[in-house]
Amino acid sequence: MTFHDLDAHFRKLEALSHAQAMLGVDEAVMMPEGGGEKRAEAMATLAAIRHDMASAPVVGEWLDRATPSNDQQVAAITEAKREFVNLTCISSAFVKEQVEARISCEQLWRRLRPSGDWPALVPSLERVVQLAREEAAMRSDALGMAPYDALIDQYDPGSKSATIEKIFTALKLFLVDFVPRALDAQNRRRAMRPLKPFQATFSVDSQKRLGQDLMSSIGFDFHHGRLDVSHHPFCGGVPTDVRMTTRYRQDEFLSSLMGILHETGHGLYEQGLPKGWLHWAAGAARGMMLHESQSLFVEMQIARSPAFWEFALPIAKKHLALDDWTAEDVVQHVHHVERGFIRVEADEVTYPLHVILRFEIERDLIEGKIEVRDIPEIWDQKMQDYLGLSTQDNPKDGPMQDVHWPGGAFGYFPSYTLGALTAAQIRKTMEISLPDVEEQIRRGEFAAIKTWLSQNIWAKASFLSTEDLLVSATGSTLSAEHYIQHVERRYLS
Amino acid sequence: MTFHDLDAHFRKLEALSHAQAMLGVDEAVMMPEGGGEKRAEAMATLAAIRHDMASAPVVGEWLDRATPSNDQQVAAITEAKREFVNLTCISSAFVKEQVEARISCEQLWRRLRPSGDWPALVPSLERVVQLAREEAAMRSDALGMAPYDALIDQYDPGSKSATIEKIFTALKLFLVDFVPRALDAQNRRRAMRPLKPFQATFSVDSQKRLGQDLMSSIGFDFHHGRLDVSHHPFCGGVPTDVRMTTRYRQDEFLSSLMGILHETGHGLYEQGLPKGWLHWAAGAARGMMLHESQSLFVEMQIARSPAFWEFALPIAKKHLALDDWTAEDVVQHVHHVERGFIRVEADEVTYPLHVILRFEIERDLIEGKIEVRDIPEIWDQKMQDYLGLSTQDNPKDGPMQDVHWPGGAFGYFPSYTLGALTAAQIRKTMEISLPDVEEQIRRGEFAAIKTWLSQNIWAKASFLSTEDLLVSATGSTLSAEHYIQHVERRYLS
Repeated sequence: MTFHDLDAHFRKLEALSHAQAMLGVDEAVMMPEGGGEKRAEAMATLAAIRHDMASAPVVGEWLDRATPSNDQQVAAITEAKREFVNLTCISSAFVKEQVEARISCEQLWRRLRPSGDWPALVPSLERVVQLAREEAAMRSDALGMAPYDALIDQYDPGSKSATIEKIFTALKLFLVDFVPRALDAQNRRRAMRPLKPFQATFSVDSQKRLGQDLMSSIGFDFHHGRLDVSHHPFCGGVPTDVRMTTRYRQDEFLSSLMGILHETGHGLYEQGLPKGWLHWAAGAARGMMLHESQSLFVEMQIARSPAFWEFALPIAKKHLALDDWTAEDVVQHVHHVERGFIRVEADEVTYPLHVILRFEIERDLIEGKIEVRDIPEIWDQKMQDYLGLSTQDNPKDGPMQDVHWPGGAFGYFPSYTLGALTAAQIRKTMEISLPDVEEQIRRGEFAAIKTWLSQNIWAKASFLSTEDLLVSATGSTLSAEHYIQHVERRYLS
Repeated sequence: MTFHDLDAHFRKLEALSHAQAMLGVDEAVMMPEGGGEKRAEAMATLAAIRHDMASAPVVGEWLDRATPSNDQQVAAITEAKREFVNLTCISSAFVKEQVEARISCEQLWRRLRPSGDWPALVPSLERVVQLAREEAAMRSDALGMAPYDALIDQYDPGSKSATIEKIFTALKLFLVDFVPRALDAQNRRRAMRPLKPFQATFSVDSQKRLGQDLMSSIGFDFHHGRLDVSHHPFCGGVPTDVRMTTRYRQDEFLSSLMGILHETGHGLYEQGLPKGWLHWAAGAARGMMLHESQSLFVEMQIARSPAFWEFALPIAKKHLALDDWTAEDVVQHVHHVERGFIRVEADEVTYPLHVILRFEIERDLIEGKIEVRDIPEIWDQKMQDYLGLSTQDNPKDGPMQDVHWPGGAFGYFPSYTLGALTAAQIRKTMEISLPDVEEQIRRGEFAAIKTWLSQNIWAKASFLSTEDLLVSATGSTLSAEHYIQHVERRYLS
C-alpha cells in the first residue's frame, strides 16, 4: 500500500515539476517582458507548494514503511529516500533566506559584470558563500559526508572531492604541457592550410533546418520535442516533450550548430529515460556529470569528428552556401584551439583547465581555507600557471565571468570536465562492441550508437549510482586516460 | 488576519491557475504531439491539486470569519464566497464521474461528427445530460435558484433564464422578419456593385503583421501579450500575459483578421482587469456575456464598421496586395449576410437565431421537458421556423455541429447573443460621452474608446454583479433595442 501511496504522491510532484519546467521554457522562448513579474511570483509559489508537498512528514513515514517487491522498487525507494533526506535536512526558512541572497547577488552580478566592479560584488558574494558553508555543514551532518562533497552531491550524487582531485591533478599536469604542443601542431597545420574564412550570410531559417536535419539523423525524436530560439541556449522541458533552444548568428554557422548538437545529447538522454518511472527520482537522469557526458559525447565525440563532417557537409550544403568548402575546412574550425579568459568560449583542450581552477577555488572557499576577497589574486595566479594568461586588474574576464557562484551553485563546475572524461571513456568502450563506430558516423548511421547509449546509460536512469552505472557501462571507474588519448589523437596530428 | 490568510491562499490558487492557463496555451501553440499524454496527466493532476486546495474546509471558515475593512473587500469576500459555494456544492466524486463522461462523449462526438451518426452518439450524450440534470439539481439547492439558472450561473453569474427568454423572444420575432429584408437589401446592393473576389495570395507573415498593427492601434499591449497560431483560435494566458491565437488561410485575409480583432476584444478586457486583485475572484472578468460583449464590441461595433475601414484599408495595403480595393469593397465582405446551417460561420444578423434555438432546446432538456432522442426533430423544426432551412436527416449540420453539449457546457450558449446585445448597448451609451466616436474610429483614434471601456467595464472586474455593472455603465438593464437599431442601420441601407 505504501508503495502505491508513494507512487500517487510522486505523480503529484511530477505534475508540479512539469508545470515548472514548461513555464521555464515558455519564459525563455515565448513570454513578453511584461509577463515577467507575475510569472516570477507564480514560479516562486509553485516551488513553495511543491516543497511543502515533497517534504511532508507523511512521505518520510511512507518511505520508512515501504516494502518494495522487486529490485527495481528497492532501488526506487533508496533513491527516493536520498532525495527526501536532501530535501528535509535544510529548513524552509533557511532555503528562503538562501534563495533571496542568491537572487540578490545574481542581480547585482548582472549589473556589475559589464564594468567588472569586483569590490562592489564582494559583500553580497560573501553572504552567499557564508550561507553555502552553513548549507554544506547541515547537509554534511545529514548525509554523512564532507561539507564540499555534500554540495557536489546535489548535482552529482556520489562524486567525492578527493576522487575528483586525484583525476584533476593528473589531467592538469598533462594539459599544462599539452596545450602548447597542440598549439604548435595547429600552427604547423595552418601554415599549410590557412583557416577558411566565412563569407556567406547564413540565414536563420536555413541554419534551423540544417540543425533539425542533423538532430533527426542523430536520433532526436521530434514527436517528443522541438527546437526553438532563446537568448541562452538550453535543453529543458520534460522527457516526453524535450524543448531545446539555440541562438543564431548569421556571419557563421558552426557555433550555433555545435550548440544544437551539444543540447541534442542532453535531449537524447532525457528522451531515453524509462517511461514508467518518470515520476520517481530513480527515473530521472543520474546527475550532471552523466548528463554532460551525453551532450559532450554528441558534440565532441561525434559532431566535431572528421568522420562526421564527411557525412554532414553534403547535408549542410543543401541548406547553406558552402559550395567551396571541404570537410577538412570545417574540421579546422571545429578543432580550433586557443588560450582564452572565458570558460564558455573555450575549446575541449583548454576547457578542463578553466574547470579545475574553479574546482580548486570553490573547494577551498567552502572549506574556509580562503575568503571571497582572496579570489582575484588566486584566480590570476592559477590562470598564469595553467594557461599563461593574467587576469590581474581584470576581474570581468576572471572570477566575474560566471553566474554559478553569485547564484550559489557551488559543486557544479566539476561535472563539466568529469562529463568530458566520461564521454571519451564511453566512446572508447563503445569501440569494443561497435568496432566500426567511426565508419558508422562517416556513413551517418547512428542507430547502433543510440542503442548502445540507450541500453547502457539512458535506460539505467538513477537505478544505479553514478559509479556503478559507469562501471557497468565501461568496465571501469572514471579516469582521464581516454580523454588524454582522445585529445592527443585529435590535436597533435 | 483572515483577510490576509485568504489573500495568501488565493495567491497559491492563482499560481496553479497561471500554470494551467500557460500549459493550455503551450499545448495548443507549441507542444509536439508526443507530449500530449503526459501533459494531459499533468493537467488533470494540477486540476485535482487546485480543487483540493480551493475547497478545503478551512477556506470556508476564513470566509465566514473575515472582517472586511472597506467596500472593495466586502465585494471581494462576497464574490469569493459565491465561488466557494459553487466549488463545494458538488462532491469531488461527482465531478470526477462527470469529467469522465464528458471527455468520453466529446471524444465520441469527434469521431462521429464527420459521418453524422447521431444514433451512435445518443447513449453517451444521454449520460452527459443526465449528469447535467443532477448537477443542476445540486447547484439549485446550494444557490437557491432554478436548475437551468444554476447552470447558466457557472458562466454568467446572475443571468436568469426567464429574463433571457423575454429578450430572446422579442429578438426572435424581429429577426425572423428582418433576415429576409436584410437579404433583399443585400441583393439590391450587389446588383449595383458585385462582391469583389479575392485574387491575390495573402502570405501568412504579411497577414500576421497587419493583424499586429491593427491590434496595436486598437490598444492591445504587446508588452503583456502576443499573437500566435493555433488550430482553434482563442484568447488565453493570464491578464499580465495575454496569449492570443489565430489561423490563416491564404486565399483571403478577412476571416483571420476578423478573428484576430474579435480575440483582441477579449484580450483588452483581460489586460484591463485591476492588477492588485488578479488573484481574487472579484478581480476576474465578470462572466461570459460581458467577455463576449468586449470581443463583439471590437469585432462588430469597430472592425466591421465602414468608418474603421477608411482607417484600416491604407494600413492593409501596406502589407497586402489590395491596390485596387476600396473601403466599400471590404465592407461588402464584412457585412455579408447568409442563411446557413453552421453557427460558427454565421454573420451577426443570423447568429442570434442559432443561439436562441440552442437556448430553447437546452433549457427544455435540463428541465426534463424533452429528451436527447427528441433533439433532431425539434432542431429541424426550429431551423425551418427561424431560418427557413431543414436539417432533416442531416444531424452533422444540425445538433452535431457544436462541442458544447457533448462537453457538458449547458448554459453557455446564451452568452454569445447576450454579448452581442450588450456590445450594441455599450456602443449606443458611449455616444453620449463620446459623440464623435464614429469619427474617432475613422481617424484610427482608439484612446478615448479604450478609456471608456476601461473605466466602465474592465476595471470593474467582478466587484459588481453583471446587471449592476451594465446599469452603471449604460444606464439601463439589457435589452435588444440597441442591437436591433444597429442591424437595421447597418443592413437595410
